[in-house]
Amino acid sequence: MIVALAGGVGGAKLAHGLALAATGSGSGAQPRVIVNTADDFEHHGLRISPDLDTVLYTLAGLANAETGWGLAGDTFTTLDMLARYGVETWFQLGDRDFATHLLRTQRLRAGWTLTQVTAAFTRALGVEADLLPMCDEPIATMVETPDGALDFQDYFVRRRQTDDVRGVQFTGIEQAHIPEGVRAACAAADLIVFCPSNPIVSIGPILAVPGMRALLQQVAAPRIAVSPIVGGRALKGPADRMLAGLGHAVSATGVARLYQGLIDGMVIDQVDAELAASIEALGMRVLVTDTMMRNERDRQRLAREVMAFGAPGIS
Amino acid sequence: MIVALAGGVGGAKLAHGLALAATGSGSGAQPRVIVNTADDFEHHGLRISPDLDTVLYTLAGLANAETGWGLAGDTFTTLDMLARYGVETWFQLGDRDFATHLLRTQRLRAGWTLTQVTAAFTRALGVEADLLPMCDEPIATMVETPDGALDFQDYFVRRRQTDDVRGVQFTGIEQAHIPEGVRAACAAADLIVFCPSNPIVSIGPILAVPGMRALLQQVAAPRIAVSPIVGGRALKGPADRMLAGLGHAVSATGVARLYQGLIDGMVIDQVDAELAASIEALGMRVLVTDTMMRNERDRQRLAREVMAFGAPGIS
Repeated sequence: MIVALAGGVGGAKLAHGLALAATGSGSGAQPRVIVNTADDFEHHGLRISPDLDTVLYTLAGLANAETGWGLAGDTFTTLDMLARYGVETWFQLGDRDFATHLLRTQRLRAGWTLTQVTAAFTRALGVEADLLPMCDEPIATMVETPDGALDFQDYFVRRRQTDDVRGVQFTGIEQAHIPEGVRAACAAADLIVFCPSNPIVSIGPILAVPGMRALLQQVAAPRIAVSPIVGGRALKGPADRMLAGLGHAVSATGVARLYQGLIDGMVIDQVDAELAASIEALGMRVLVTDTMMRNERDRQRLAREVMAFGAPGIS
Repeated sequence: MIVALAGGVGGAKLAHGLALAATGSGSGAQPRVIVNTADDFEHHGLRISPDLDTVLYTLAGLANAETGWGLAGDTFTTLDMLARYGVETWFQLGDRDFATHLLRTQRLRAGWTLTQVTAAFTRALGVEADLLPMCDEPIATMVETPDGALDFQDYFVRRRQTDDVRGVQFTGIEQAHIPEGVRAACAAADLIVFCPSNPIVSIGPILAVPGMRALLQQVAAPRIAVSPIVGGRALKGPADRMLAGLGHAVSATGVARLYQGLIDGMVIDQVDAELAASIEALGMRVLVTDTMMRNERDRQRLAREVMAFGAPGIS
């Protein structure tokens, strides 16, 4: 059984590949995906979990591949009416997407944990993989910029990631607990995969849950990261600018350094082949391959390569 | 200035007629409509105010005339997705309608009163009449049936009003207060109109707010009711069956008796002309006319007739 750590789009794609590979292998051991929830926020009175939803919709085959968020073919009728009431609608939420947020909010208010809510969603949408929120406590990512501290979605969506990033804080993380399902998944894992998600604001918060780094240091399973930086750029989102702003190298090597001590191997893109030696010098193995996930076939191929590289016995 | 007491569809139509008449007269004195909120309820974690919304949408020209609820041309994408999550969707809520409930819920949670929320909605949708919730406290209508007490929407929507009604309770009404705007409206009124709404569960709750009956007994303005019972039947909804179940005459006379002491005159349909004498015997004046509101012209005509009958000086 494979455990994946994932944020939004890139993480969702590889998690989907791992799920497809498990289905294809007939082993029935679907992956368990630990998902970042630090960019969750309240909007229109609803609890929005962008990364959980991106992974959920992607694994359910419902994701909008063009935008990277929301559901394919969704409409925006509710949002248009909210605009008519004079409400700010810079965060796009489709009509079908609203159902997810409505039900999540209602169930959280009724006392369900986010873990329980998410498990019910996966079952309802026919997703066999387990989606595990990194914690059940609400965490808020704050981005420090020259204009002051910004709520993450303000920085990410409304201001389109144009601000320089001088620091990142995960408010509430000190009080967070590793959910039992996350702990059990790590203990039972044959392989742990750090998906190609933003190391600062997607994988970073997962690692910041108290006890999570120690847990990952102690697991028996090999731990492999797939670089989200290819050719010195993020495949999607602001990871490259964030790394630069925070003084890290904007490269697979920079990512490897961030994960040093937590991973045994790194998967980097073929365009970065020349970085292999510098990463191996950090005490890791390196796989150089095509890490682009243009379609489902790519997702599954990369998943199989990561599995073969990390834990040859299970692939 | 005219004050109207209204529930859902029938009340909304006459309130719309009064608003059209005010606009047509050029006086600029738009009606103030006191609206039943006792069938408000929570659904999908949202606060739904069916009668307020029917009046709001009707006066905004957005109502769905065919169904009597919701917005014309609304879609049901969110509800379909909720169904996919396994949620019961017997209460139909359209995508545009959801925006109203979302924003209402968010604002109530933020500390707005229902009165303030409703005022903002009317302004946003260009409604010039004032919509005044009968109170700002949440009230729940419970319907006593042979199968036990039912939540109002359970009785009304899910079970399609098929249960015998043995009693009606407005839970929480003892703690309700007359909002200042309702008190001021009644004091300033030139005419008070009881719209042709269900006397038990639409007008009844308004009259049950502590102090409301006394307020209506003391006002200087003439008070006129339009019968919602025509030819022994309710024009819409279960008013006829409710009246029968509770031991009242199912007729304009039965309605007049319920309002005795609170009104000075009754407007009844031409098919009920023979009831005029029995109603006059209760100490009221009676206007016999065509009370059917098939279109906007009918609404405005009936409004003008009610105004001329009740307070000739202002029409």
